[in-house]
Amino acid sequence: MLLRPWKTISSQYLSKSPWISLRAEKCETADGHTIDPYYVVEMPDWVHIIAFDKDEKVITTLQYRHAMREVFWEIPCGEIDEKDPSPMDAAKRELLEETGYQASEWIDLGVMYPNPARQTNKFHNMLALGAKKVAEPNLDVAEEMTHQLSSVEELLVSIKSGKFMHGIHVASLLRALMELGKI
Amino acid sequence: MLLRPWKTISSQYLSKSPWISLRAEKCETADGHTIDPYYVVEMPDWVHIIAFDKDEKVITTLQYRHAMREVFWEIPCGEIDEKDPSPMDAAKRELLEETGYQASEWIDLGVMYPNPARQTNKFHNMLALGAKKVAEPNLDVAEEMTHQLSSVEELLVSIKSGKFMHGIHVASLLRALMELGKI
Repeated sequence: MLLRPWKTISSQYLSKSPWISLRAEKCETADGHTIDPYYVVEMPDWVHIIAFDKDEKVITTLQYRHAMREVFWEIPCGEIDEKDPSPMDAAKRELLEETGYQASEWIDLGVMYPNPARQTNKFHNMLALGAKKVAEPNLDVAEEMTHQLSSVEELLVSIKSGKFMHGIHVASLLRALMELGKI
Repeated sequence: MLLRPWKTISSQYLSKSPWISLRAEKCETADGHTIDPYYVVEMPDWVHIIAFDKDEKVITTLQYRHAMREVFWEIPCGEIDEKDPSPMDAAKRELLEETGYQASEWIDLGVMYPNPARQTNKFHNMLALGAKKVAEPNLDVAEEMTHQLSSVEELLVSIKSGKFMHGIHVASLLRALMELGKI
């Protein structure tokens, strides 16, 4: 079966900002059905950093997340800034800013899409090896967070038990563990 | 370090619909910094279905996703409807509608959050075993999709190579494979 794209008949922004924009589109399927409105969300691309120190522990964060009004256990991450020369540079910047760590080896594990049905952005999975603390974190006023080292075993137990439940971070973490032959 | 929630000073909807709503909040951090606006996205909760047939193949879908205007390789999924008595019922309904399969055993693997920083919704990971085709799919006009059976090995290779790149579906799939001791 050939999967056929929709035609976009019209598109208008309901809200526009550097962080998130929402547009409503009038679409037509290949069978001639009209879908109106179909909402599309634009957000910046992200980097997710799966960083291991010399003892093979993973650098994880605890961060207050305002949409859920709760603290989530995560991996370092952030939006790619216009000033970042590349996604890899963004990953290095975010790891240093959020945790004070630098890594000796970086491997780009490719991109995934958080929600291609509604969102236009992607996230880059960046694996960092030999990470070492070189500075104190340099947090933004909007970042209420801390960091720690977690063993792979502890993380796997936490994913299974529902303690580590940031979905796209679970994807990045397990993708990195596959790469390293740890799962 | 105690992680302190923000105070929400005010909140207003910029757009409101059954599919997605966007609100802008004025917040104050525990240190007294004002964050204005902070955008929060509301979407319905979702179910993700990781269904295995008797030969231990996974039921996967190919679906046109309009935000990215491309076809993505995925697992069956959908929004929980007000009429669904429970998330598990929603999972059974979606699997049957999208693929025509029914399963003999269902296991609730718990919830994850697609993006707790910006989104208020969660997704339920539902594992289905002994899935069998009992009907033809009953697709909505907005669903341009097909389904097939994929081996676990094929899926793992595809996640590593970047062919299967729907992030939260990667999380659900790997979570299920952990449960079954397959990774």
